[in-house]
Amino acid sequence: MKVGILQFRPVLGDKSKNLKTIGRFLRRRKFDLAVLPELCSSGYNFSSKEEAFDIADKKGGETFSFIEELAVKTGGAIVWGFPELSRGKLFNSAALTTPEGDHHIYRKTHLFYREKFIFEPGNSGFKVFKWRGVRIGLMICFDWIFPEAARSLAIKKAQIICHPSNLVMEYCQDAHVTRSLENGVFIAMANRSGLEKNRFADLSFSGRSQVTDNRGGRILSYTASEERFGVVKIKPELADIKDVNEFNNLFGDRRVDLYQA
Amino acid sequence: MKVGILQFRPVLGDKSKNLKTIGRFLRRRKFDLAVLPELCSSGYNFSSKEEAFDIADKKGGETFSFIEELAVKTGGAIVWGFPELSRGKLFNSAALTTPEGDHHIYRKTHLFYREKFIFEPGNSGFKVFKWRGVRIGLMICFDWIFPEAARSLAIKKAQIICHPSNLVMEYCQDAHVTRSLENGVFIAMANRSGLEKNRFADLSFSGRSQVTDNRGGRILSYTASEERFGVVKIKPELADIKDVNEFNNLFGDRRVDLYQA
Repeated sequence: MKVGILQFRPVLGDKSKNLKTIGRFLRRRKFDLAVLPELCSSGYNFSSKEEAFDIADKKGGETFSFIEELAVKTGGAIVWGFPELSRGKLFNSAALTTPEGDHHIYRKTHLFYREKFIFEPGNSGFKVFKWRGVRIGLMICFDWIFPEAARSLAIKKAQIICHPSNLVMEYCQDAHVTRSLENGVFIAMANRSGLEKNRFADLSFSGRSQVTDNRGGRILSYTASEERFGVVKIKPELADIKDVNEFNNLFGDRRVDLYQA
Repeated sequence: MKVGILQFRPVLGDKSKNLKTIGRFLRRRKFDLAVLPELCSSGYNFSSKEEAFDIADKKGGETFSFIEELAVKTGGAIVWGFPELSRGKLFNSAALTTPEGDHHIYRKTHLFYREKFIFEPGNSGFKVFKWRGVRIGLMICFDWIFPEAARSLAIKKAQIICHPSNLVMEYCQDAHVTRSLENGVFIAMANRSGLEKNRFADLSFSGRSQVTDNRGGRILSYTASEERFGVVKIKPELADIKDVNEFNNLFGDRRVDLYQA
């Protein structure tokens, strides 16, 4: 299975330019599953809820059609982040859009910083979607710092965790080595690069998108600033092997009765 | 508060030599809390249950008296690993021994590899002990790979996690950067160095003992092979600050209802 991660600089408020950039990158290389950054259709650093409302996407809307068409044309599934408008509410969401026309949506559980004034806390929970026999879990950006996010997805048998991000710090990249190792899963983390200013803060995004394998090895990693769509071949079924050695198993050895929730 | 970690090469089966080495190191430098490796009184690589029984320690026995005396003389508390014999059963345990004569015991929850043929799975759960106003949590070696171990201790308000280890691999050292960061706690990890052979396997221990601070910074770290008792000054109360920024809190933002246990 060919997994690609796209790192680029979405332009705040310019959806048509962002979708064009996404299309251009994804048509360049063959992939089965592509992961794009958080809020990649809209940009990140909204000054107000109204600004996010104006550019938000609805399931069935034209951004969904655009991504679906891209999935059909390329033959690959696409995980992409966007501001979701649903029944008058805004969520920081990601969708797994397949060439078959399915859109599986995850809504960010742990909102970061001023996102709390823009979006509702996600209500979807951590979900794993099966596509062509591969079990794909979704989480978004700041979810990474809560070990329960990746853990929940792995317990629900995710083989690959797709992690659209707009990270400003650089801790997550190293943390994913541990997250992959402790859960025995692949993690495809697509971060953005570039700078976004608004009246509250200038945000410089940390890039360094990466794919870690089921043993925590970095099998694809970018620099902080580059724009790139790279692809790496993985065997998702390796994530079903949870044995550490002949007597230890990452999940069989868990002692849930002794853990503090 | 001065926290020390001892890295040395316990000799399998030679308790008197091991205790002598421990005493020699700990009398050299002033400390408030010292962390020693897993099974540091006995060595690690037992060939049989009988071999472990023969050298096991009982609460109230002479090893306990030796460590207690050392705590009294040095004025510091000592966390040390030992094979514990209790009601005919063997546990891979660690005790927090204080100059006041208390011995708080933790029994390893997740046994590694052939330990399963030697020890009973720990039944103490993850415990936090308060000593002179500081909240100290204990975990042992392989517990590290289960994020729930450090997480449980942090939820129970541990400020410092003491982690006696006999690690053969080198993943834990990096993982603790993430564990400290995601939980906002100090972790004092004392690993052993050296080689131990038995009829099943030759084990080479990975050393690189370290202390990470509440933000994941390495504030003390050793090489793979050295024998050393180093001390670093910390402010345990910093671990009570769980704010990431003005709107995010590592624990306040947890959404337990959405996590899979």
